[in-house]
Amino acid sequence: MAEDRFAIGIDFGTESGRVVVFRLRGGELCGTAIVEYPDGVIVQKLPGGPELGPDWALQNPRDYLLVLEKGVPRALKAAGVKAKEIVSIGTDFTSSTILSTKRDGTPLCLLPAYRKTPHAWAILWKHHAAQPEADRINQIGRERNEDFIHIYGGKYSAEWFFSKVLQVLNEAPEIYENADRFLEGADWIVWQLTGEEKRNTCTAGYKAMWVKGLGFPSREFFRAVHPRFENVIEEKVGTTFYPLGTRAGGLLARWAQKTGLREGTPVSVGVADGHAAIPATTVTRPGSLAMVMGTSLVQMLLGTRRQSVEGICGVVEDGIVPGFWGYEAGQYAGGDIFAWFFEHGIPKSIHQQAHKLKVPLTKLLTKRAARLRPGESGLLALDWWNGNRSILVDADLTGMLLGLTLATRVEEIYRALMEATAFGTRVILEAFERAGFPIRDIVACGGLPEKSPLLMQIFADVTGREIKVARQPQLCSALGAAMHGTVAAGRAAGGYDTIFEAADNMAGIQASCYRPRREHHEIYDRIFAEYRILHDYFGRGSNDVMKRLKSLRKELTKESILCKD
Amino acid sequence: MAEDRFAIGIDFGTESGRVVVFRLRGGELCGTAIVEYPDGVIVQKLPGGPELGPDWALQNPRDYLLVLEKGVPRALKAAGVKAKEIVSIGTDFTSSTILSTKRDGTPLCLLPAYRKTPHAWAILWKHHAAQPEADRINQIGRERNEDFIHIYGGKYSAEWFFSKVLQVLNEAPEIYENADRFLEGADWIVWQLTGEEKRNTCTAGYKAMWVKGLGFPSREFFRAVHPRFENVIEEKVGTTFYPLGTRAGGLLARWAQKTGLREGTPVSVGVADGHAAIPATTVTRPGSLAMVMGTSLVQMLLGTRRQSVEGICGVVEDGIVPGFWGYEAGQYAGGDIFAWFFEHGIPKSIHQQAHKLKVPLTKLLTKRAARLRPGESGLLALDWWNGNRSILVDADLTGMLLGLTLATRVEEIYRALMEATAFGTRVILEAFERAGFPIRDIVACGGLPEKSPLLMQIFADVTGREIKVARQPQLCSALGAAMHGTVAAGRAAGGYDTIFEAADNMAGIQASCYRPRREHHEIYDRIFAEYRILHDYFGRGSNDVMKRLKSLRKELTKESILCKD
Repeated sequence: MAEDRFAIGIDFGTESGRVVVFRLRGGELCGTAIVEYPDGVIVQKLPGGPELGPDWALQNPRDYLLVLEKGVPRALKAAGVKAKEIVSIGTDFTSSTILSTKRDGTPLCLLPAYRKTPHAWAILWKHHAAQPEADRINQIGRERNEDFIHIYGGKYSAEWFFSKVLQVLNEAPEIYENADRFLEGADWIVWQLTGEEKRNTCTAGYKAMWVKGLGFPSREFFRAVHPRFENVIEEKVGTTFYPLGTRAGGLLARWAQKTGLREGTPVSVGVADGHAAIPATTVTRPGSLAMVMGTSLVQMLLGTRRQSVEGICGVVEDGIVPGFWGYEAGQYAGGDIFAWFFEHGIPKSIHQQAHKLKVPLTKLLTKRAARLRPGESGLLALDWWNGNRSILVDADLTGMLLGLTLATRVEEIYRALMEATAFGTRVILEAFERAGFPIRDIVACGGLPEKSPLLMQIFADVTGREIKVARQPQLCSALGAAMHGTVAAGRAAGGYDTIFEAADNMAGIQASCYRPRREHHEIYDRIFAEYRILHDYFGRGSNDVMKRLKSLRKELTKESILCKD
Repeated sequence: MAEDRFAIGIDFGTESGRVVVFRLRGGELCGTAIVEYPDGVIVQKLPGGPELGPDWALQNPRDYLLVLEKGVPRALKAAGVKAKEIVSIGTDFTSSTILSTKRDGTPLCLLPAYRKTPHAWAILWKHHAAQPEADRINQIGRERNEDFIHIYGGKYSAEWFFSKVLQVLNEAPEIYENADRFLEGADWIVWQLTGEEKRNTCTAGYKAMWVKGLGFPSREFFRAVHPRFENVIEEKVGTTFYPLGTRAGGLLARWAQKTGLREGTPVSVGVADGHAAIPATTVTRPGSLAMVMGTSLVQMLLGTRRQSVEGICGVVEDGIVPGFWGYEAGQYAGGDIFAWFFEHGIPKSIHQQAHKLKVPLTKLLTKRAARLRPGESGLLALDWWNGNRSILVDADLTGMLLGLTLATRVEEIYRALMEATAFGTRVILEAFERAGFPIRDIVACGGLPEKSPLLMQIFADVTGREIKVARQPQLCSALGAAMHGTVAAGRAAGGYDTIFEAADNMAGIQASCYRPRREHHEIYDRIFAEYRILHDYFGRGSNDVMKRLKSLRKELTKESILCKD
């Protein structure tokens, strides 16, 4: 009997959504379907609409619905599982990806009147154009010594909920006025599936200043930020949030029809993708650091108390696993940097060599990079291609590469970029340690652990720690979402009663792991000391050149947009 | 009659030698031949010999002779000129490129006993492995307050004569002992042609601490540097040097036979390639800066007095043009950086686009880079891919690129590299200005002015100065060498009596020039301020990370060479 129970996890990522069917016993992957978002990440120009400024990143909410319509039936078919065997549905979502909607949940961008207004579209997590708004929020927050400043390690990010809502208010007040609701994509998709606007505590706590038992900052705070922002909570957000694993409702008939699932199948409340992954890596207790390694990097840790940690981007009670404080840190760019490098940095000669040797380009380059010893290239990079999240919390910082000579080769640069992301992670580990959190080991998940064993070894060598890898590292978000779904169903309906029970039955790690090599770790200690100096010099105000160049660039881009019109 | 007089200029460059036949009246180019050095620049492994350490750069002296044998007859043929119409021969050479020879001028590396010893080969100007020796020379020079420290702007370079000779003494004492002479390639080639070891004042003054009227530093200085160095001048260098335009001798019969020229054709003393070019750009008086733009960049200025200018790499009386103090500054890498970038930094997609559009790669990329406005990319580079010559005089500095984001494109990096070299030049201009030298305009020569009009425009915009281009910018060294040759012949033998007379008749500039655009210059002022801060931070000891990484690299490379054995 037990063998026939399955759970669906749906992971809404940056480029695509993935539907996965898991077996409840053992967590085995039974079937999966990936649906690319047709409009992808919109960074240059709205479909049929105006050009976007620098640092913008939007999405089309229709693309999310397409994942349900196309992906669920395909995944069911791939798994060979019947609708009645599906115990529950759980979803996870990039965050903060925010939508503005009418009272019935219709996104404003889907209404003809607002289709050409960028601010009406889904504003993706990696949209970085709300930095002035984040600055304003931080200024007022600090002046008033608001609690969120401390919760978020000193700074509220330009990527998060209120920075983006405030940008809408500042730049497109008509959108702000005509939006009945602003909400996370994580909550919007659950609303679509169930007809219930039941928002989750995870994204509220990590991205929107909400604190269990205390709620949001006061009206006075929001008024101080902007006069028309005073009633944003009451008018456009709401005050009730539901813990992870709560049943949001049952699947609506129209979605049952479109997906082939049964009407009323339990759906759990939403959760941010990174946070969903943590219990799926087996990390459900303090002492291990879970690291989600994809386009960006996220590090999460569980603690038994709330405590100040420098540059940690969120501390939320019950935010990841009930009963613990969930600590979140992150790096804005991880796999993104390597993708950028492979697109823009690989000369033709290397392509030709790969072709001649009949090996994939990445394999050739990785082999050459693996042959280098730490320090051999003389290169050092700051991994801020997409800004710095932890511990500097500054989207306006940029990447740097130093040590270039006429003898520098492409595989040396590639390795320097890998090392830089590892150094960035080490800065975060050390911030946790300084705050008194012991970290025994690291459990990694996401796309990178499978793509690049060399990267994982560099992380082990740089951090001096054993790095384990989750059993299905690319599916941890979907698995975690599905696990929360089984808890929403509960044992009585064929699921599990707690996330611990779900983890014991469904999560696991791989048998082999990456162990630090002492001689490499010692050299990396020396290079990391250099990284630290540059990190502090460029990141802590000694020389704000990166920010000044970025602001000059914005200034010029505005002028040139004006010129074009 | 006058129309039938011609002069040969032979320019010994980094990768090849070039023989050019010029008409005396007007300086018209009549015929040219380029001979690539078969062994090129030897950086990894001696032909049939051991591997070289990092930063080594050697050449095979046989390659220089090949230029004479093959190049002269081809150039004569191309010009359709007869041997009797050739008034004179002038040569110029990269510097300091040094040779160790026996008493008869035979380079040690051509003797079987020393063939496999790297230190016995011609040590090329861009050999950077003698930094410890330069450090030692500077330390002793500063302790003793030697005049050369001031002449060379505070530091004696690792690229120069005594640094390299001292490296030979330190690392291969048997070569030092067995060498009867150490000399510049510039003087060696003249010795080969004429049988006369007549050394020139230019390379002696700019690279070897020699001062007109004063000679070399004392024996005590050399002994303090190294006990066995005490008598280096008397034993291996000599004390007599001849001003530019001096007749070294007549062409030897064996070279007349090999080249097809007449025995006894006047040959002038040697001259460094950059310095040879200056009168050929029309710069024979103070007020204009001449800039040689090739693989590296050299800036030269004439003054009426000797004076201290920060980081200027040489001040030599009569060093460029008789009657003036010649001031020399430089940047170790110019065109070299762009060549590196085109080899290692251009992705396949750009190659494909160029192919599809049927335009050369450089043209496509230049077109895209030209469309960018200053500051639009948000990038800023330090142009130290090959160290910093002026004004920091430090071969151990390395390149840096800052402002990288996931949106950074290849043409933006290309433009940032061009801007960085222009910023580097501006630092030099400002050092001259601070020392009280007015610079009205700049006259450029070398390969880059013809290759990249965009680069020239960026130089005009960054420096805020009009940039003129010499009439035959790639041939100025050869033309200058030929002009000195005509002076060596003198009016009586069909040449000219002074370099001014030669310049009036043979040198010229192009009709059009590059004018700074105010709006671009204003933005560049802001970006240059940032360049300055980083220049001083990384270059003046605030953060010696570049030097520490380089020394770590050397440490590791040494270990790994040991491991291989």
